[in-house]
Amino acid sequence: MDTPITTRSLFGPGPTNPYPEATVALGYPLLGHLDPLFIERIDHTCDGLREVWGTENARTLPLSGTGSAGMEAAFVNMVEPGDVVVIAVNGLFGERMCDVASRCGAEVVRVDHEYGQPVDPQRVADAHPNPTIIAAVHAETSTGVRSDIAALGELKGDALLLVDAVTSIGGLELRADDWGIDIGYAGTQKCLGVAPGLAPFTISDRAFERRIEHPRSWYLDLGMLGGYVGAASGSKRAYHHTAPVGMIASLEAALDRIHAEGLENVWARHAAAGEALQSGLQEHGYELFAAEGHRLPSLTTVKVPDGVDSAAVRGYLLDTLNIEIGAGVGAYADSVWRIGLMGPNATPASVTTLLAALDEAVAATSKR
Amino acid sequence: MDTPITTRSLFGPGPTNPYPEATVALGYPLLGHLDPLFIERIDHTCDGLREVWGTENARTLPLSGTGSAGMEAAFVNMVEPGDVVVIAVNGLFGERMCDVASRCGAEVVRVDHEYGQPVDPQRVADAHPNPTIIAAVHAETSTGVRSDIAALGELKGDALLLVDAVTSIGGLELRADDWGIDIGYAGTQKCLGVAPGLAPFTISDRAFERRIEHPRSWYLDLGMLGGYVGAASGSKRAYHHTAPVGMIASLEAALDRIHAEGLENVWARHAAAGEALQSGLQEHGYELFAAEGHRLPSLTTVKVPDGVDSAAVRGYLLDTLNIEIGAGVGAYADSVWRIGLMGPNATPASVTTLLAALDEAVAATSKR
Repeated sequence: MDTPITTRSLFGPGPTNPYPEATVALGYPLLGHLDPLFIERIDHTCDGLREVWGTENARTLPLSGTGSAGMEAAFVNMVEPGDVVVIAVNGLFGERMCDVASRCGAEVVRVDHEYGQPVDPQRVADAHPNPTIIAAVHAETSTGVRSDIAALGELKGDALLLVDAVTSIGGLELRADDWGIDIGYAGTQKCLGVAPGLAPFTISDRAFERRIEHPRSWYLDLGMLGGYVGAASGSKRAYHHTAPVGMIASLEAALDRIHAEGLENVWARHAAAGEALQSGLQEHGYELFAAEGHRLPSLTTVKVPDGVDSAAVRGYLLDTLNIEIGAGVGAYADSVWRIGLMGPNATPASVTTLLAALDEAVAATSKR
Repeated sequence: MDTPITTRSLFGPGPTNPYPEATVALGYPLLGHLDPLFIERIDHTCDGLREVWGTENARTLPLSGTGSAGMEAAFVNMVEPGDVVVIAVNGLFGERMCDVASRCGAEVVRVDHEYGQPVDPQRVADAHPNPTIIAAVHAETSTGVRSDIAALGELKGDALLLVDAVTSIGGLELRADDWGIDIGYAGTQKCLGVAPGLAPFTISDRAFERRIEHPRSWYLDLGMLGGYVGAASGSKRAYHHTAPVGMIASLEAALDRIHAEGLENVWARHAAAGEALQSGLQEHGYELFAAEGHRLPSLTTVKVPDGVDSAAVRGYLLDTLNIEIGAGVGAYADSVWRIGLMGPNATPASVTTLLAALDEAVAATSKR
């Protein structure tokens, strides 16, 4: 029995609906992972990734796992037992960084922030005199907050700056080199408009030189992966693992789509959609969760109004209108909604649809 | 610039050309990873996986990475520093197991075999009096050899039996429960006829109870993943990471295709294609590499004839005929070819094509 095929509008925290070009490319004939045509494809994909990262790092590549595999790769290649890692926590993904870093043996120095607030760069910089790594989330998917990574980069000193860009890459301004990001990871299923399954990753030469030569993870060993994508200049391509060739073709197509539109135009489209949704929600009487001035365009957090049943509204949207929005996380599971406008969904039409649908869902579930 | 779209016949060691149904499913509308329809889909996929594994293990699921991520998950969840792991090495993937297990801190006891020969179960069982784990590769992709896993299962004693089934699953007889496999991992890009990107995984209750509660890897933590696919009976689905929803729809479709044909019929189709290729090659004057009686139907290893340039032949096949076959590995890189007949490619037509193409390529490159 096949699962029924149903078209959903994916306005949750991700995955988003993919760019049509990304879906079409999944139907291309597969290439072997050592085929010269695939080598061209992955090189072109890495070039496209460098543009969305805002970097010239030779070692910029799609890792063969989801965004969380990117987080793990970032820590497992850099952290020796006992290393001090300062982590800015202002949401679930900062929390997760603490868990991942601890498993690598790090001495984690947490700098907690209220959920809904951005990271305070000075507090993070002051948390320890000489950490190995300072880590923060650029766009907190759990709270809808954008933090100032450039300010952290200015204060990092000799530490390496490790950044989660899962919900910013391809939708918001991101300038890894200018901001001093040494290690960055992301996902494909948000603003890049590709199905989940790959983790765009970048690492500076400065950070790569400080990596662990023989990390605990074989699968995510960047030394081996460097040869695999040809990032080590002049090196022969070495077989490491079988690349997810189909997903990479899809990512290549989405990146081509983004660069054809123009990266800054894509950022502007996300910004306009997010602002329209946020002002529309306030006009419709809803209150936003994330601190003003620090709101992500790609992911809007809304307080569930008093007396409204969060799950009932989400269920109505999904079952009646085929619209997915997300619940909150942790302590805010039932009191916050998360609404994503990412990739091809970052349009005025999405905003109009969402505002009407949310009003209808609230009215319909309140009448019950 | 888009990479040119070229249709290759993928007769290498994998990826293979996918089943058409698997490609079609990649075009289905994406579902959110928490959508009740996706939960149905992953449950149905896990049911289909249980059949190809030959298991009733509740914890049978597609991990979000390639086959090598499956290998890493197998060791990282089971091996504490100092644990004795006996590894049967008769090819590259046994070698890789030694590397992965060492990074987990294992005391690795290698049992080396000549490449091209199957694993000797008695030598492996005698290698250590009380290992934590005994590990072996069912179908060595690097040499084209099948080993007797059931015999290892009879001799394993209190040890856990960990098996690589990357090149057997969905194409060869595989009976995890009957053979005593405690932990198994595989890939999707071989006989299952799906693009690379997922690692079908299974673990027995006996093994799960002995796992590490807080393994070094967060991404591959089976305790967390168990809740994620609902394998822990009665448990609520917990968010762990964003599942690669598109790839899972593709795997589901391929499994449905295999089960509609009938699993034993699919095994018979692979067996017939492999035997036809192997006898045809011998009739055409080629010598096979893998030991007689232990040859994989899905992956045939052929000795490159004296005076023939291995790379020139592979290049001619790819550039002139759009046919991919594989080189050998390690010491056999230039002296062995690897020819796969997997998934939809396991047919008489593939055999006829390959024999004619190989003869032509050898003749064409010798004339130069």
